[in-house]
Amino acid sequence: MRPQDMSPEEFQKHGHEIVDWIAGYLSHTRDYPVAPDMQPGDLIDKLPASAPAEGEPMEAILADFEKLIVPALNHWNHPRFHAYFSVSASAAGILGEMLAAAVNVNGMLWKSCPAAVELEEVTLSWLRQWMGLPPEFFGIIHDTASSSTFHALGAARVMADPDLRQRGSNPGFTVYCSEHAHSSIEKGALALGFGQKNVRKVGVDGEFRMRPELLAAMIAADRAAGLRPCCVVSTVGTTSVTSVDPVAEVQAIAEREGLWHHIDAAYGGVAAMLPENRWMLAGAERADSLVVNPHKWLFTPIDISAFYCRRPDTLREAYALVPPYLASQGDPRAVNLMDYRVPLGSRFRALKLWFVMRSFGYERVCAIIRDHMLWARELAAAIEADARFEVVAPAPMSLVCFRYKGTDEENQRLIELVNRSGQAFLAGNRLNGQWMLRFAIGNLGTTREDVFETWSKIQALASAGLCDPG
Amino acid sequence: MRPQDMSPEEFQKHGHEIVDWIAGYLSHTRDYPVAPDMQPGDLIDKLPASAPAEGEPMEAILADFEKLIVPALNHWNHPRFHAYFSVSASAAGILGEMLAAAVNVNGMLWKSCPAAVELEEVTLSWLRQWMGLPPEFFGIIHDTASSSTFHALGAARVMADPDLRQRGSNPGFTVYCSEHAHSSIEKGALALGFGQKNVRKVGVDGEFRMRPELLAAMIAADRAAGLRPCCVVSTVGTTSVTSVDPVAEVQAIAEREGLWHHIDAAYGGVAAMLPENRWMLAGAERADSLVVNPHKWLFTPIDISAFYCRRPDTLREAYALVPPYLASQGDPRAVNLMDYRVPLGSRFRALKLWFVMRSFGYERVCAIIRDHMLWARELAAAIEADARFEVVAPAPMSLVCFRYKGTDEENQRLIELVNRSGQAFLAGNRLNGQWMLRFAIGNLGTTREDVFETWSKIQALASAGLCDPG
Repeated sequence: MRPQDMSPEEFQKHGHEIVDWIAGYLSHTRDYPVAPDMQPGDLIDKLPASAPAEGEPMEAILADFEKLIVPALNHWNHPRFHAYFSVSASAAGILGEMLAAAVNVNGMLWKSCPAAVELEEVTLSWLRQWMGLPPEFFGIIHDTASSSTFHALGAARVMADPDLRQRGSNPGFTVYCSEHAHSSIEKGALALGFGQKNVRKVGVDGEFRMRPELLAAMIAADRAAGLRPCCVVSTVGTTSVTSVDPVAEVQAIAEREGLWHHIDAAYGGVAAMLPENRWMLAGAERADSLVVNPHKWLFTPIDISAFYCRRPDTLREAYALVPPYLASQGDPRAVNLMDYRVPLGSRFRALKLWFVMRSFGYERVCAIIRDHMLWARELAAAIEADARFEVVAPAPMSLVCFRYKGTDEENQRLIELVNRSGQAFLAGNRLNGQWMLRFAIGNLGTTREDVFETWSKIQALASAGLCDPG
Repeated sequence: MRPQDMSPEEFQKHGHEIVDWIAGYLSHTRDYPVAPDMQPGDLIDKLPASAPAEGEPMEAILADFEKLIVPALNHWNHPRFHAYFSVSASAAGILGEMLAAAVNVNGMLWKSCPAAVELEEVTLSWLRQWMGLPPEFFGIIHDTASSSTFHALGAARVMADPDLRQRGSNPGFTVYCSEHAHSSIEKGALALGFGQKNVRKVGVDGEFRMRPELLAAMIAADRAAGLRPCCVVSTVGTTSVTSVDPVAEVQAIAEREGLWHHIDAAYGGVAAMLPENRWMLAGAERADSLVVNPHKWLFTPIDISAFYCRRPDTLREAYALVPPYLASQGDPRAVNLMDYRVPLGSRFRALKLWFVMRSFGYERVCAIIRDHMLWARELAAAIEADARFEVVAPAPMSLVCFRYKGTDEENQRLIELVNRSGQAFLAGNRLNGQWMLRFAIGNLGTTREDVFETWSKIQALASAGLCDPG
């Protein structure tokens, strides 16, 4: 018994209510407008300025959740959430999270919770195999791809300058990624003190893939200028258009030049698990590190980012307070996760991934990803068939980038009208100087009909002269 | 409906089973040995080397959870988990996590989920008020105190060197904390490239509190040596002994010297919420930043660390890709959390904190913390009354540090025997060159009887000549 906590009976009562609410939510997410209709501060203004002095009944909290919080949600688990990347919390993943919250363990050290540490190793080994990567890749879970990439950049700098650990960093290390790489690379470099001016954006080809010859030329120019090229990041599934950088060619340059090669496959790593998509990660087996996010396209609730690294000793050199050459000669199977990262502690994130991978199995995951990719190709074809629109980038995964053949303002207005309708949620971006719409497919609840009804809505808005026809 | 996911009925069935399991677990956690009896790799060896090709029924997964995972857990939510700091996942916090997993939102931008962003602001304002801090403190949630402190150090460096953002860091910035400060400060400095040799450990007084005159002397010596003092971290509740650094005196030095003052109140910030403990944070109102972890002593499931900063513009200068002077002139109430941190995205962590703060209320939180502190004082008195033992540090919070008056090996053996018994879980540490036992009180399920039965167990082991009497 826990005399200072809610009674088990009361927990059961509300727990069952919440399970029923979630079951209803997962069945009828489509009944909610995807994005809320509100102004900044609306929720803040509805909530008390101070916490209560006396505890409140759970009934009141749950009622406010429904009345105040739910209407202020942007429903990322909605089948018509097509902005950013479309993600899913599967039922299995939610069940895993319930148990992780209850046992509340911290996986900082092997002895602080062997189950968390060992299940992390097991599930990341499973996932690594699904991607066809060799066993030399050590796996560790971070919260987000930004954190995974940050740890790669920090380790790359230590590999380039072994004295850095003791003495501190010198300026002049340079980092390379394509113009279409994710902002997390520049962010990581900024936080680590590389300096924003030392982040090089390599130009791309007509399909938005990094041009290796430009990378090689930039590295040469930087060396000639006395700078120290340190790390190159290639992307498998860029955020803007899901383009796939030529991983093997970048790897060859990285090896020749002695650079750390990090692969940002946060989104695309899951697509690469399909046999027909193996080309996407060709060459990755020799890279230094790679990130893939199960919370993106692998039906696992946010947050879980899988970071793989072929140089765990360098991670320890960068992040362990006890450097590798002084580390205890303890059992090598007793991994202390804190030695490989900035955060000391961590939640039991592997549990939900274990639930998801076992519950779906490889074949079913592939079948779903294959559907999403097929619908993206079909959507792209439908868009191309409408003379008022154009597809502006290849769609090798499940993101379709397109535009209304009009002004930037008209394209932005289209997004705004779709989003305001509550029927779907899209985001836009600039590409080659023009505004475009990004239509991301990836939620477990999405059907082919969802995709095409939203496309019909977009067409109807265009037919109505970009006024909502109601 | 979600045709590609588990049916809602199946989710409900297993969800109800899991709720019942958790209710039983919270009622009878005490029936489990606190720490598992296993060797490194034991769990790995019991699990398949590869993930299944075909999906498995949830019944099989849940059966394996009970059969394989639970016996490999170190039960942090157990009333007799007294190692590190004792933490709790309350029933209310677990209920909040269930809903957060289901809605699966990402709070990277205001528009990506207004509810997550605004509830984060509201709950952190509530918590700030409970600690008596002024409204100038901007609050943001990180995963762990390590990450919060990392962000403070990075911002401190940018404040000291505004050119760093563009040009990159130069070596020579120094960081100060007490000899008893948490490893996360050194870790953050290491990761950021300050260099380990530029982290100064300031000596302490007889009660393990940073000595301000030594801090001032170290800063002066570093300046004389051409180094650039940058940040000082004082601790309210050190990990080793919960000592409280003289925050106001450190603040005065920081102001005089132009250093960023960060307060690590990860554990102690919650104690400081009690009226009788206000002295612990006296002076903190003028500090630059502070971290307190609701997942430590505020009954909220891991992970949630509250980071407060009086210089949000400097956070943006350090971490926003769009620097403050170029930021959009949008609605200032539409906070984009990504601009204040390394991770782009984040889970809906505020939800569980909202559930906990409302469910308990301020008075009940204080009453529980007061009990934990009382039991710690009573335990310390009981230990002092046994001539074979000595209390080795004051116990201003709920951690009692003591030792058996014997060799280090005997003290280590005591810990080992207690832990192996499964009746309680303790950790040790070195203090003033001698091994000691740390007895942390803080779990919601812990009773005064738990504390004293474990103390009796320790006495019995001593009486039996440090052999387990069975």
